[in-house]
Amino acid sequence: MTAVAGASRAVVLVSGGMDSAVTLALARARGFACHALSVAYGQRHASELAAAARVAAMLGAVEHKTVSVDLRSIGGSALTADIQVPEHSDAHGDAEIPVTYVPARNTIMLAIGLGWAETLGVNDLFCGVNAVDYSGYPDCRPAFVHAFERLANLATKAGVEGRVLHVHAPLIELSKADIVREGVRLGVDFSQTVSCYRADAEGRACGHCDACVLRARGFTDAGVADPTHYVPGA
Amino acid sequence: MTAVAGASRAVVLVSGGMDSAVTLALARARGFACHALSVAYGQRHASELAAAARVAAMLGAVEHKTVSVDLRSIGGSALTADIQVPEHSDAHGDAEIPVTYVPARNTIMLAIGLGWAETLGVNDLFCGVNAVDYSGYPDCRPAFVHAFERLANLATKAGVEGRVLHVHAPLIELSKADIVREGVRLGVDFSQTVSCYRADAEGRACGHCDACVLRARGFTDAGVADPTHYVPGA
Repeated sequence: MTAVAGASRAVVLVSGGMDSAVTLALARARGFACHALSVAYGQRHASELAAAARVAAMLGAVEHKTVSVDLRSIGGSALTADIQVPEHSDAHGDAEIPVTYVPARNTIMLAIGLGWAETLGVNDLFCGVNAVDYSGYPDCRPAFVHAFERLANLATKAGVEGRVLHVHAPLIELSKADIVREGVRLGVDFSQTVSCYRADAEGRACGHCDACVLRARGFTDAGVADPTHYVPGA
Repeated sequence: MTAVAGASRAVVLVSGGMDSAVTLALARARGFACHALSVAYGQRHASELAAAARVAAMLGAVEHKTVSVDLRSIGGSALTADIQVPEHSDAHGDAEIPVTYVPARNTIMLAIGLGWAETLGVNDLFCGVNAVDYSGYPDCRPAFVHAFERLANLATKAGVEGRVLHVHAPLIELSKADIVREGVRLGVDFSQTVSCYRADAEGRACGHCDACVLRARGFTDAGVADPTHYVPGA
């Protein structure tokens, strides 16, 4: 628990992955006292949630909450249903949505973040969505974030009270290499983050899924040594 | 389980209350095969969820699912946190938001409904929000529903695939008396629905909270006998 006297407060979505860790570090660098939120949506890679708690503590969040929503019952994704997470392939085009896409996931996570922001009375909500390496996920595009911000101001008492809610997606136009560089600049220890869709119980990465391959390329392209813990033989 | 051959399909949010029951009946009357969705958000009035299952079966939904999201951990409402639900009062003005307002509830429930619609591949999502008797809830206004529909088309693969998602709120401009009349016309058995914020374990209504008073007035104004089960002495 880090108290930040007089600072503005923000709710920050923290998944335990690289992108949301850098987002939290950026929000802290901008002077926000950060309330970190993880959403446990029945994902297979539960070790991400343990990483989220580490990341929140490491980067000085005021508090960290996990809200559960059981998306397994509505299925539709390799991350929540009984569908195999594939190896990475460069063959799929931009128009194709991968099986790891979780239907409406970012809408649901931002909606829960909005509820907490409203309870706390804060006007700023940060998320780590990224359009460059978004692998075809529709809910990672700038137009999505703008539409959510518009909705947020109609959905809540902030609007009724004359406040304006801001939804920040500071990584949205950055490449993975840019995100690595930002994290290094801000002192993020990436060895504590877990991005892999198939991480084991200790949070070790498979090295072969989309998330692993994009992350590893980010380190290579940024010229930064990859501190990721991989499973033996990955 | 009622199969509707060749019909269009829709996801319908069903809470167990009067408004969503009439919404489901309307969707069925328009020929939709309906996938009923309840969201268990930690509400005190859990007997509403039992009512939702009855309503879905009674009105011929194809299936009924309940998705849990624990909003108690983010608090902020008399319906989920340790805040007393008050007696109804006509004194509070339109600008005042009651303590029974659950932060971002409709955004969260619609977002989960959107996720299921996407998994099912359906283009229509119905909810029973109502602007007339909305008691000051910001997320029951037409502008909110329009903003959510716009978001839905950006958030999902429907847009990427060239489909258009429609978010229907057929009760949004109706008074409670109009809703009672619509329900009677469509054969809804209102004795099976639970609207009360303080219903007991058997789903019997307190008769004195906002939800009870607005509902009872709806029956009176429509000239329809009130079939609600009240607690003894209510």
